[in-house]
Amino acid sequence: MVKMVIDSWNAQVNNVNKLIDTFTDEQWNTEVSLNRNRGIYLLGHLVAVNDRMLPLLGFGEQAFPHLYDVFAAKPDKAVEDLPTLDELKRDWHQSVKTLATLFNNLTPEEWFAKHTAVSEEDFAKEPHRNRMNVILSRTNHLAYHLGQLNLLKK
Amino acid sequence: MVKMVIDSWNAQVNNVNKLIDTFTDEQWNTEVSLNRNRGIYLLGHLVAVNDRMLPLLGFGEQAFPHLYDVFAAKPDKAVEDLPTLDELKRDWHQSVKTLATLFNNLTPEEWFAKHTAVSEEDFAKEPHRNRMNVILSRTNHLAYHLGQLNLLKK
Repeated sequence: MVKMVIDSWNAQVNNVNKLIDTFTDEQWNTEVSLNRNRGIYLLGHLVAVNDRMLPLLGFGEQAFPHLYDVFAAKPDKAVEDLPTLDELKRDWHQSVKTLATLFNNLTPEEWFAKHTAVSEEDFAKEPHRNRMNVILSRTNHLAYHLGQLNLLKK
Repeated sequence: MVKMVIDSWNAQVNNVNKLIDTFTDEQWNTEVSLNRNRGIYLLGHLVAVNDRMLPLLGFGEQAFPHLYDVFAAKPDKAVEDLPTLDELKRDWHQSVKTLATLFNNLTPEEWFAKHTAVSEEDFAKEPHRNRMNVILSRTNHLAYHLGQLNLLKK
């Protein structure tokens, strides 16, 4: 079961990797639809959300704490000086590599242990608030934005 | 675990339900991005894919076999006479109701049994090709198109 959920996450990660391998800078800088987010914003958003999984899953500190404000708390175009596409692509690859190593080293028991945003008391009542649930939810989040990024395909 | 995966499916289904409750006909008839699929096509597509899960999961025949050709095999705008929005909304609600009943009645063993598109021989080598994997994949598929449908929000 754990393997299926990790495979499902990896499949979505590979879909993002394919876009990184094929999209031009012009595609990344295009809005996915009129007056909506640009590809570059969504890429930064996905890195920022990956990075937040580290503390949420109890894996330690964020590696790119500066990204969350620019690519999640604030909307697209609110900040003028964004990190470059090359930096974001490098950060994406690092974030998924870090997560993959951590995911592969968790035991099934650790997958079903609580994540850090739930108290012991609440977890006793709501045992589904565990690490496995976080990855299920983040996999859907990746798929959601992939549906948007794929609109930039030629 | 099974409960978490069904909850994840239900969360995406509820997101579609919310769009059905709030989108105007004009929104459904708008392209999610320039020259891309219209909302009505994506709604029909989601019903058609839900419907195909019935035979795939061994639950019997499709209820709306006419939809797959129009909303999956063929691209948007290839067919002039589409079902109406009211018909598609009704079919959506019926399809998720049917699936919910079937999902809730499966035992954990049945979730991990093979689906119908894999042979006994292949299943012995690839035990992840089971019903649980189908729902994980279809949940990501729903999230993917929700990312596109949400671009039609005002």
